[in-house]
Amino acid sequence: MDASKLTIDVCFSPYLYPVYEKENQIVVVIDVLRATSAICTAFQYGVKRMIPVATVEEAKTYKDKGFLVGAERNAIAIDGFDFGNSPFHYMNDKVKGETIVITTTNGTQAIEAAKTAHAVVIGCFLNITALCEWLIKQQKSVLLLCSGWKNKFNLEDTLFAGAATEMLNKNESYKLLDGALATKYLYQEAHQNPYKFLNYSSHKERLSAMGLKEDIKYCLTLDKTQVIPILRGKYLELL
Amino acid sequence: MDASKLTIDVCFSPYLYPVYEKENQIVVVIDVLRATSAICTAFQYGVKRMIPVATVEEAKTYKDKGFLVGAERNAIAIDGFDFGNSPFHYMNDKVKGETIVITTTNGTQAIEAAKTAHAVVIGCFLNITALCEWLIKQQKSVLLLCSGWKNKFNLEDTLFAGAATEMLNKNESYKLLDGALATKYLYQEAHQNPYKFLNYSSHKERLSAMGLKEDIKYCLTLDKTQVIPILRGKYLELL
Repeated sequence: MDASKLTIDVCFSPYLYPVYEKENQIVVVIDVLRATSAICTAFQYGVKRMIPVATVEEAKTYKDKGFLVGAERNAIAIDGFDFGNSPFHYMNDKVKGETIVITTTNGTQAIEAAKTAHAVVIGCFLNITALCEWLIKQQKSVLLLCSGWKNKFNLEDTLFAGAATEMLNKNESYKLLDGALATKYLYQEAHQNPYKFLNYSSHKERLSAMGLKEDIKYCLTLDKTQVIPILRGKYLELL
Repeated sequence: MDASKLTIDVCFSPYLYPVYEKENQIVVVIDVLRATSAICTAFQYGVKRMIPVATVEEAKTYKDKGFLVGAERNAIAIDGFDFGNSPFHYMNDKVKGETIVITTTNGTQAIEAAKTAHAVVIGCFLNITALCEWLIKQQKSVLLLCSGWKNKFNLEDTLFAGAATEMLNKNESYKLLDGALATKYLYQEAHQNPYKFLNYSSHKERLSAMGLKEDIKYCLTLDKTQVIPILRGKYLELL
């Protein structure tokens, strides 16, 4: 291995993050279906800041203080809050200029796990090109952190990790570690029809059964936006 | 998801095992390069029992008591012990009928992590067909537990998980969970030349740099043996 090269690696679960933690790497948090897709959409539609929180209780405290709050567990928007984690919930004039609190089953847990990293940014198919171009300019090693499903591996975040690995490494300027190699191979097989590729994935089944096929299709669309949300203290803000 | 179906899933790191633990599933511990390949080879050459231990200190205690001991860390056989974790070390008349203690960087840690499972068996390409035929007969859900490298994902164990998934599910009698789906896709891409597929994998690079190409080729060979080592208390024994 050429030790001088920057690396790309993939961590398949927030639970595994401590094993992958290292100094000076940029962590991309991925929760394609649907938290990071919703977060990018919210910024696209004019949200000023978001506060990701790990628990519903914390979200409730913010709600009581008058914040707008998105809250989801097990793919369902929680009653009494303003949004769930569908991107479509945030395509809404009332988000403009606001600070929105968000808690989700997986994505906000991954942000919490990685919060002490050199930098934490939010990735999904919707902002993939803008994100990868920015990452390449930073000249840092990249860790793609898949949120998974309740700390288990999932297919859709893995697919995004592969797409990002391929895009980041088009000039072969990174060393791909094993997780990145595996996801890149998978994406090469899947890229012509990611929706079909995910056919048997557990979360696609879960969402399809809930009538959320449009959400899935939207979340698999490339380059709807240029926004790159980054974690600054407790806030996600635009770069 | 058809809840009545048995499942196949893959856990990519011993560190993640608690997330995948469930009642009544059979755990296949995988460390293709090289612990589980060495263990299967040892049984093929007549070892009676093996005692996997997590630490070198524990192995040393057994050595002092007169046991034959294999000990490896960071791909190197440790001085003062009888074997490392190359399969070739165990193709040896002196193993016949013996109880051998073994400790390795990854594989024995994975056995330790899973020891309370319903059943723990040892898998590698060398015993894949015999193992899969036995697993199918058990009518239990299967968890393929990759040992990885120091708790990180690795490519070669993943490849074996894909091969086993494909072999187990040839009659579509299992439900494949996301980890199994991903590894199956990878194996479909890799199966014609696994050695080439692993070309850039970190551990293949590590072993190749140490002159261990023959070990790698051997460990990627299918069906050298019919042995299926199973954990009974602290011992690995033949089924």
